[in-house]
Amino acid sequence: MRHVKHLICLHCGRQQQALPSTCTCAACAGILEVVYDYDRVAEKVNREYFRDLREYSLWRYLPLLPVEPHTPRTPLRVGFTPIYEAPALAGILGLDTLLIKDEGQNPTGSLKDRAAAVGMAKAMEAGENAVACASTGNAASALAGNAAALGRRACIFVPQRAPRGKIAQLLVFGATVVSVQGSYLEAIELSRQAIKEYGWYNHNAAINPYLVEGKKTVSLEICEQLDWQVPDWVVFAVGDGCTIAGAWKGFVDAYSIGLIDRLPKMLGVQAAGSCPISNAFHSGEALLPMEERTLADSIAVGAPLNPDKALRAVRDSGGTMATVSDEEILQAMSLLGRKAGVFGEPAGVAGLAGLRQALDQGRIGRQERVLLCVTGNGLKDVYSAGQAVGEPLSVKPNLRDLAAALPKELLG
Amino acid sequence: MRHVKHLICLHCGRQQQALPSTCTCAACAGILEVVYDYDRVAEKVNREYFRDLREYSLWRYLPLLPVEPHTPRTPLRVGFTPIYEAPALAGILGLDTLLIKDEGQNPTGSLKDRAAAVGMAKAMEAGENAVACASTGNAASALAGNAAALGRRACIFVPQRAPRGKIAQLLVFGATVVSVQGSYLEAIELSRQAIKEYGWYNHNAAINPYLVEGKKTVSLEICEQLDWQVPDWVVFAVGDGCTIAGAWKGFVDAYSIGLIDRLPKMLGVQAAGSCPISNAFHSGEALLPMEERTLADSIAVGAPLNPDKALRAVRDSGGTMATVSDEEILQAMSLLGRKAGVFGEPAGVAGLAGLRQALDQGRIGRQERVLLCVTGNGLKDVYSAGQAVGEPLSVKPNLRDLAAALPKELLG
Repeated sequence: MRHVKHLICLHCGRQQQALPSTCTCAACAGILEVVYDYDRVAEKVNREYFRDLREYSLWRYLPLLPVEPHTPRTPLRVGFTPIYEAPALAGILGLDTLLIKDEGQNPTGSLKDRAAAVGMAKAMEAGENAVACASTGNAASALAGNAAALGRRACIFVPQRAPRGKIAQLLVFGATVVSVQGSYLEAIELSRQAIKEYGWYNHNAAINPYLVEGKKTVSLEICEQLDWQVPDWVVFAVGDGCTIAGAWKGFVDAYSIGLIDRLPKMLGVQAAGSCPISNAFHSGEALLPMEERTLADSIAVGAPLNPDKALRAVRDSGGTMATVSDEEILQAMSLLGRKAGVFGEPAGVAGLAGLRQALDQGRIGRQERVLLCVTGNGLKDVYSAGQAVGEPLSVKPNLRDLAAALPKELLG
Repeated sequence: MRHVKHLICLHCGRQQQALPSTCTCAACAGILEVVYDYDRVAEKVNREYFRDLREYSLWRYLPLLPVEPHTPRTPLRVGFTPIYEAPALAGILGLDTLLIKDEGQNPTGSLKDRAAAVGMAKAMEAGENAVACASTGNAASALAGNAAALGRRACIFVPQRAPRGKIAQLLVFGATVVSVQGSYLEAIELSRQAIKEYGWYNHNAAINPYLVEGKKTVSLEICEQLDWQVPDWVVFAVGDGCTIAGAWKGFVDAYSIGLIDRLPKMLGVQAAGSCPISNAFHSGEALLPMEERTLADSIAVGAPLNPDKALRAVRDSGGTMATVSDEEILQAMSLLGRKAGVFGEPAGVAGLAGLRQALDQGRIGRQERVLLCVTGNGLKDVYSAGQAVGEPLSVKPNLRDLAAALPKELLG
């Protein structure tokens, strides 16, 4: 792993060795970031490098990942998700070009598979037999699925209120699911204690510095799939801030080794019921924690662990943040399904709602080239989908009743 | 489309022209099959042809599909699903080699996207603005999603009892969903009348001869992804019989143009509560319709429309049929998740239950190379998943209570 120089603390600036189990800064407990030797990477990796590469997953980008070449990797196909042009949807928004990257096509249905793929590789390097995290959502199912595929035990801490459907998926993957009789914060705290007590691999986002490296592959893929022509804007929903920070890191890495010749602007979108990062962005003041009142559960984070990295990503890119209501999110879900054939979960489509707003407010120009990342599959939350749409037509089994009920466009 | 000779009726043998809207036989209403000019196809398509092909979807196989080169195609990435080696699961079964093809990674979550991709292409050729089918399941969501992506209207007929979750996905895709106040058969009958009355494109499986051509691409992909080394056995769950018939056609096509040098044996698996094809296979007598009593709803077909094609596929291949209980299906779901990190819906994992049985009974040898196709994503039916697994551990938020609850393997 000679292409990785070290880890650096984003808080105190201290360097430390990139060991597989290293988490937060030994000195100040700040968040660490992987620092690459870009010159060394650039010796090997250029546009030509990818031309005949037959690795159809995020491991295409191994020379830019903090993983040893021979580390056992998840056998699941993580990454290599498709990008669609969406002219009909672009037309409705009044945009010239809209591109959609569908991260719901990952093996457990969300972008979080990218984090788990790299996280599990580091767990294998660390030699840990068990991995753990506290999460009710996509991060948990990604960890459980990829751990199972590698034959490793996963222990997932969830608050008592976690929905049964989400727990079922974790249990199918054979994870040990600990339902903590208490709040989400109590579940996190117990996971922290247990990880320390039993020596499990710590797979919590914003604590483990490698997960964001997995997430950045979404941007490396965007660059390559668009033939290195970077969009003007890239849109992500924002919860704890790790995903948009990871995406930005991917663009910075690609730029630093000369794969792309400019950087995109980032639009980060939060739900109005849980938008502390967006508030901090616009106020310029310190982040104030909020309650978590949105149906977009994957981005319902009132006290985010990684706001600084996210704020830096949006600011450095010259981008902006938007805040959208649950109603706008549900409208976006329906719009995306009807006009592009992509079914996203509420958090996954929040970006579309924010894009719409940014266009209406003139913050994004209609001639700019925009890529929207749909971060999770709608099948993860069919209940919310039910709220986004109306009722079916109910008819008696005869043509006359049917004709009376059908919309005119179908009557030919 | 000079590589397509004509359609042939599997019942009366009559040839007819392959028009985009042709459905069943004009003479006897039998099921039609597409006949290719294999010599012409083989002139262009050989192993070399695929080596540098950068089309990462089922359209890799366009020269073997009944679609014109310039027909507008679904922009969704259909096909190019991954195959995983599953050594841990193979070990439990006592098999040397088990391969898993995860069709749940298709855009709407099932193999049926392949049928809809080709079906929608034919609808575009036919110039129809609206497409229709009767289905509650994967075929409906595949049609709705791919129609939306192409900007075409879809009208889906469902029986009154169809679960709300499945309807929500159809409505998100903007389909007109007609809930028929009656049985499934009444929904089918009303769809038939309406298709005729309004001139919609008929997208019902076993009536439309092109859908099975889409399904066959799963086998073309298997052949190519395994570097043309055909497995000894290929395992599919069986409902109406169209999928296993399509898969077999893919192998026959590949063999006929010389891409592969032998054919696999097919293992078809039905649920005990709805196994008329399996019964007919083993009795050698005419098919007797059954009730539909299984939680594997995607293969709950008591009166299949395409039993002859399915029976022919299994018999011609030298394969066999198995019948599995719902309990075995739920066990298979859990086993697949725990040991391979793949979450399949009940019908999607029924094949694994059948494989297990066939191994136990010695019908498949433990040294044979087996590929299991998981036909649909477990997220489609989280309710059944809940039945397949136990409960999470419930603990108070302290380490002592946690230690008492955790399985020993996790205590380090």
